Amino acid sequence: MQIVVVGGAGTIGKAVVDALSERHDVIVAGRQSGTVQVDIQSPDSVRDMYQEVGAFGALVCAAGEAHFGPFDAMSEQDLRLAIESKLLGQIRLVLLGRSQIADGGSFTLISGYVFDDPLPEAASFAVANGGVEGFVRGAALALPRGIRINAVSPGMAAESEEQFGRFNPGRLPVPMRTIGAAFERSVDGWRTGEIIRAW
Amino acid sequence: MQIVVVGGAGTIGKAVVDALSERHDVIVAGRQSGTVQVDIQSPDSVRDMYQEVGAFGALVCAAGEAHFGPFDAMSEQDLRLAIESKLLGQIRLVLLGRSQIADGGSFTLISGYVFDDPLPEAASFAVANGGVEGFVRGAALALPRGIRINAVSPGMAAESEEQFGRFNPGRLPVPMRTIGAAFERSVDGWRTGEIIRAW
Repeated sequence: MQIVVVGGAGTIGKAVVDALSERHDVIVAGRQSGTVQVDIQSPDSVRDMYQEVGAFGALVCAAGEAHFGPFDAMSEQDLRLAIESKLLGQIRLVLLGRSQIADGGSFTLISGYVFDDPLPEAASFAVANGGVEGFVRGAALALPRGIRINAVSPGMAAESEEQFGRFNPGRLPVPMRTIGAAFERSVDGWRTGEIIRAW
Repeated sequence: MQIVVVGGAGTIGKAVVDALSERHDVIVAGRQSGTVQVDIQSPDSVRDMYQEVGAFGALVCAAGEAHFGPFDAMSEQDLRLAIESKLLGQIRLVLLGRSQIADGGSFTLISGYVFDDPLPEAASFAVANGGVEGFVRGAALALPRGIRINAVSPGMAAESEEQFGRFNPGRLPVPMRTIGAAFERSVDGWRTGEIIRAW
């Protein structure tokens, strides 16, 4: 089965690719890296990616940006990045790919622990994560041909501890292998409409 | 205390106004009705509303639109309404009103049960609701001067049963008074960063 991993060259994306490439043919897509170029903020770019990829059995997204910074200074413009990239960008991958994915295929999007356990600096992330989780739950009820959809909500990744540990008192970093395995459960498992927490 | 109820002339808004007006001075704001006009999709309109209202101790939003219809036909354009109105429109009320609200004041936004218990036709609503819930949890950690923020997540309102009952097998309608009371608990209570479910 051919699996597209959008953002597969990023911190979490690499863990996803590691987990999936043992048993699958993985195509890494990314804005600046990977074998296929895609900018999830652009519908045209997403369409081009699907045309280039052709037949596929699963798509995983480990991409999507959002603003991280003090809430006091957070403007609507700051929030737009979360909306257009981490939220709409991911949903766009499903809306534009759902007719092309194989029967019984799956989409796996990425949410994150700050929806459940927020940080003052990560309100934008919480907005995007909540939106993604709502979309996944709704879409799972209506996708045709046995197509499944889940979101993985990773905790603080071990490889991000140096950057984000100081914002997360008492939060134990999650080994990259644990995060990769959560994506593998979504792709190779049976569940749909679920938020798979990797904390 | 002066309380602004955006969407106060709508089905749920009326229940909110009923619950709050016994003990408070309520100003109803709305796009076409109420004593103050506001379109939450427009930052300028929200700024004008706050200028007209002046000092206030609480703002409740019972407004925000989203697309309801078959998922198969749902386009990114359909989803935009949920993003710009029910999600960003509500957040905008907080971002633009937070400097003007009284010390110890509160914002109460509206989410909805389809985030937790989705309907295939309501994926857009689920996106907006999840985003609102994420925002509320994050913002509560950072709002200054004792300002609180919650979201009320109403079930299927009794007055909407005729319109939406057929999409909701086995869902008991929630009396309007129960929904109004949930908003009252947010405004006159002590909690912050909570999703108050009225199911």
